[in-house]
Amino acid sequence: TKKKTQDPPIYHDLLVSLEDIAKGTTKKMRISRKVISPDGRTSHLEDKVLTIDIKPGWKAGTKITFPREGDQTPNTIPADIVFVIKDKPHPEFKRDGSDLIYTVKINLRDALLGAVIQVPTLDGRKKQIQLNEVINPNTEKRIAGEGLPFPKQNSKKGDLIVKFDIKFPDGLNAVQREALSQILPR
Amino acid sequence: TKKKTQDPPIYHDLLVSLEDIAKGTTKKMRISRKVISPDGRTSHLEDKVLTIDIKPGWKAGTKITFPREGDQTPNTIPADIVFVIKDKPHPEFKRDGSDLIYTVKINLRDALLGAVIQVPTLDGRKKQIQLNEVINPNTEKRIAGEGLPFPKQNSKKGDLIVKFDIKFPDGLNAVQREALSQILPR
Repeated sequence: TKKKTQDPPIYHDLLVSLEDIAKGTTKKMRISRKVISPDGRTSHLEDKVLTIDIKPGWKAGTKITFPREGDQTPNTIPADIVFVIKDKPHPEFKRDGSDLIYTVKINLRDALLGAVIQVPTLDGRKKQIQLNEVINPNTEKRIAGEGLPFPKQNSKKGDLIVKFDIKFPDGLNAVQREALSQILPR
Repeated sequence: TKKKTQDPPIYHDLLVSLEDIAKGTTKKMRISRKVISPDGRTSHLEDKVLTIDIKPGWKAGTKITFPREGDQTPNTIPADIVFVIKDKPHPEFKRDGSDLIYTVKINLRDALLGAVIQVPTLDGRKKQIQLNEVINPNTEKRIAGEGLPFPKQNSKKGDLIVKFDIKFPDGLNAVQREALSQILPR
């Protein structure tokens, strides 16, 4: 008898919000598959619910495999169904491993002269940060422990990294230009 | 008789400079492989030179396959040798598809008040650019046709994209702070 070959895996993206990654969650995915009928010759469609237990801190790209849950056919081994975790875009945060990145917009005045900024946390609190020194376009501030849990050690968390998008004045008039040329170092 | 299986492909990175990508080049790679001796039972090492004709504009990730150039063994089909083009890091330019990216450092004074900057081209010329308007950290300038040739249409070229790394003053004294607070918009 000829050895059965397996159909290639079927990949599905599974978009997960950062909030769900932070706490872990359970997703139930309904799939529809061809199943061989008891007569061994015909097949029919069957719905099935696959349950995915998402652990806190899972990285994007994590794969969860359900072996042989693809269509049944007489002559092949059903494909594996593979779900691939993807980050659902978040309106405020990006993710970098276990760190979260938040970009705050400030104007050039505040970047040079200082300001108090408010930084949201993923669970909805606000952190105040006093800016005392000159903020430049590459400045990053880290708020320790306000990132996502480490996947293998949930009690530890990554950081919340604050980046700065500095808004420059659209244009300067002659008086402003003259004054700036006196003040700013060459 | 059992069907021979092929050994999995052997991948080698092939670092290519942006200058060579721009013009195209030929690389000769010496490989050393086991070859079955005429007696059919013993094998010996043989050197072989594989010639790779790199076409202008080839992207990083391009694969060149030399079928069955791996070690010969009595019971398997020799592996394919695959070279994968990678960009050799360049001191001045980065690559984005067919565009080149050059980052120029300017200080905040020049970003706000204007300046003339010099931008090198990949083939060693200099382009002068007059900055007349406020340059902010996200500003990009494109110099058309100074990028890399399109891989499928070498007569067309990508752009040279100029980005700006704006150096802020390290600190400001009380007089500078007071003056800036008068000038800069809230």
